[in-house]
Amino acid sequence: MRRVTIKDVAAAAGVSIGTASKALNGQGKLRAETRDRVAQAAERLGFAPNTLAQALLAGRSYTVGLITTDSFGRFSIPVMLGAEDALGTGLISVFMCDTRDDPDRERRYIEMLTARRVDGLIVTGRRIEPRPAVQADPNIPVVYAMTQPDGEGAAVLPDDQGGGRIAAEHLIAIGRRRVAHITGPERFLAARLRARGFQAALGAAGVESCGAARFGEWSERWGREAAGQLLADRPDAIFCGNDQIARGVADTLRAVGRRIPEDVALVGFDNWAPMALGALPPLSSVDMRLEEVGRVAAEHLLAAIGGERLRGVHKVPSQLVVRESSGG
Amino acid sequence: MRRVTIKDVAAAAGVSIGTASKALNGQGKLRAETRDRVAQAAERLGFAPNTLAQALLAGRSYTVGLITTDSFGRFSIPVMLGAEDALGTGLISVFMCDTRDDPDRERRYIEMLTARRVDGLIVTGRRIEPRPAVQADPNIPVVYAMTQPDGEGAAVLPDDQGGGRIAAEHLIAIGRRRVAHITGPERFLAARLRARGFQAALGAAGVESCGAARFGEWSERWGREAAGQLLADRPDAIFCGNDQIARGVADTLRAVGRRIPEDVALVGFDNWAPMALGALPPLSSVDMRLEEVGRVAAEHLLAAIGGERLRGVHKVPSQLVVRESSGG
Repeated sequence: MRRVTIKDVAAAAGVSIGTASKALNGQGKLRAETRDRVAQAAERLGFAPNTLAQALLAGRSYTVGLITTDSFGRFSIPVMLGAEDALGTGLISVFMCDTRDDPDRERRYIEMLTARRVDGLIVTGRRIEPRPAVQADPNIPVVYAMTQPDGEGAAVLPDDQGGGRIAAEHLIAIGRRRVAHITGPERFLAARLRARGFQAALGAAGVESCGAARFGEWSERWGREAAGQLLADRPDAIFCGNDQIARGVADTLRAVGRRIPEDVALVGFDNWAPMALGALPPLSSVDMRLEEVGRVAAEHLLAAIGGERLRGVHKVPSQLVVRESSGG
Repeated sequence: MRRVTIKDVAAAAGVSIGTASKALNGQGKLRAETRDRVAQAAERLGFAPNTLAQALLAGRSYTVGLITTDSFGRFSIPVMLGAEDALGTGLISVFMCDTRDDPDRERRYIEMLTARRVDGLIVTGRRIEPRPAVQADPNIPVVYAMTQPDGEGAAVLPDDQGGGRIAAEHLIAIGRRRVAHITGPERFLAARLRARGFQAALGAAGVESCGAARFGEWSERWGREAAGQLLADRPDAIFCGNDQIARGVADTLRAVGRRIPEDVALVGFDNWAPMALGALPPLSSVDMRLEEVGRVAAEHLLAAIGGERLRGVHKVPSQLVVRESSGG
């Protein structure tokens, strides 16, 4: 298929190329009606983000700063890859900055990025808890991904509560009625949201949960220990707050001769390939779609660079990947 | 401690600041003897890489491109973090480029980085096999890290053979005499080198290996299967080519009631924290020190930007981390 150009958008909207460009740039004096018509034409024709970026960024530095507090860890990498994809290979370049949770490092990086006149910033991390907003020049748009700022600002987050809900709905759908939950520390907002979504879905289906959510650690060790505590309650399914906990649970179930999934179905969270696929049996797991979180964040940033005013939190729906541990 | 400056280096070498700067930049007409004297003074005073970078890079773009074929995976991330550290927070900025093993993407990235006048390139990946050299402007220095180019060029690699050797020496030192090896696919140079180092160390100590190295996959599944095949040989120690294989081996040993490490000691490779620490019991593992690989690569790149001519492969020694699976 031929690539859609600004010329096609202009023709479809019945305006000049200059007007279409101004409309998409959010610049110049145009009637709101004209601006909307161009935007609709662009959307209808599938005028792609990369092309859009090209138009939007005329006269800019074509660079974006990506700041992580997570040393490019397990959660920030997929976000980063998704963002990089949306920004387009080689069209917009990404400066990477790893602050390692050090406010001084963050400040120095922001200064450096400002001096290099980046067009925008994406801030990512390993926790969704609100964090202090980065102290950047107010003219530089900022989008948070997999983390959110205190107060106002644009953020893209995974949907932890929805993730808990779909795990419960799946276990109910395969006929389980004694469903337990083992998860990470209660101080983690993500752990609380997953537990809340899980409980709400059980409640909506009239299924009682097998004891209260057990908060502990994000580790296999905790999964082994908590599963041992739960055995007396004879659960027929256990939803775990991450894949490592689910692996620990599987160890204990195997040690006492309970079959997975026949006796106890297991669902993890994160869909972290080496953990979920290497498990015995391979784990069903909720996938937060972190690449999509990064992609959406980058698209929001491009819109903001184009002059759009962004606010609030956008949540990307999670997806359940079913494997042997819950039937498959 | 006060930071060493170019002034200190000049004074110690008995030359002017201008001469010291030229010598460290590899520029201007200087006698070889003068150049050496300045280099020795810089080294003696511990004139730090960051400071060196500052001097060397006067008039440059202060940016470096980091190209990975590995989507910033498990092996390229620590390399990248080490490089970023050595380049200094905010002093030299790193453009990240993920080629995803696609030669077209790589070509576009190189064009983009050249247009942005990067001072140098670090190329990294997930395999140490020689790869086609990047097609960059010959004036842009390139250092490969955790991968190496076909033909000439500078590369920094982990020492896989040395890693196999120290694993064998450890198992011999704790008194094991029936030592087996289970590892990944034989087509991987890393797997062959680890097996070679392991066999050589057994040979040097006069210990016979318990069967030939078993090449297979890098997975837990393969570890489980290969351990089952090995049981009849009654090994008292198993060295595994990665931590996932070692976890699979541990599963099988546990299933048949062999105690780790009392009956069979286990050593993995990679020292990948979530795998090695989450195992039952936690795994001894060979650490390739990938952050150090990245750090050394960045230092070599700075030297090359400064005019030094680099050639050949530099290997960073591996380190054994001992945990419960082999005594501790």
